[in-house]
Amino acid sequence: MLTTIGDKWTLVVIATLVAGPRRFTEIQRGIDGISHRMLAKTLRDLERDGLVSREAHAEVPPRVVYELTPLGRTLLDPVDGLVRWVGEHGRTVLANRARLTL
Amino acid sequence: MLTTIGDKWTLVVIATLVAGPRRFTEIQRGIDGISHRMLAKTLRDLERDGLVSREAHAEVPPRVVYELTPLGRTLLDPVDGLVRWVGEHGRTVLANRARLTL
Repeated sequence: MLTTIGDKWTLVVIATLVAGPRRFTEIQRGIDGISHRMLAKTLRDLERDGLVSREAHAEVPPRVVYELTPLGRTLLDPVDGLVRWVGEHGRTVLANRARLTL
Repeated sequence: MLTTIGDKWTLVVIATLVAGPRRFTEIQRGIDGISHRMLAKTLRDLERDGLVSREAHAEVPPRVVYELTPLGRTLLDPVDGLVRWVGEHGRTVLANRARLTL
């Protein structure tokens, strides 16, 4: 279970949906380095797990919006804890990595 | 950064080291489905990031012990938040998944 939540992009996508519903392209723009294919897979998995809902609006061009479900929103606090950790310690980790990778 | 912390096995390995120092084989036994190779890579990355330290004892047979560093221990609270989330909501997620995968 923790390996699913901890899947490479899962936490990042959830963090992107914190502020509210987003279209596919908006999510993709917010995440460095995620491919169209990988974002589609991550969103499909999150939808399957009941954490994200997908709503397709019959417009031209079609508009598809992703949103955290009530269950998905219960993840906000734990994910926020990790996001704050990265804010506090991310630079130290990157400095360690740069030093030891040389 | 969040994609590193959220790497498939990273959080699980950190959660395994919560209780204290562990040998490689002890860590592996505690994690379903992780290969020797993948655990070795995850531990090497965590060591490079300064989150885990590795101590080799010159005994017969050699004993290698992994432990969270002070920096790694700052991850315990956020990781604990996720572990508790899985405890509370993991079954719901697995039930959703089973239903939608059929």
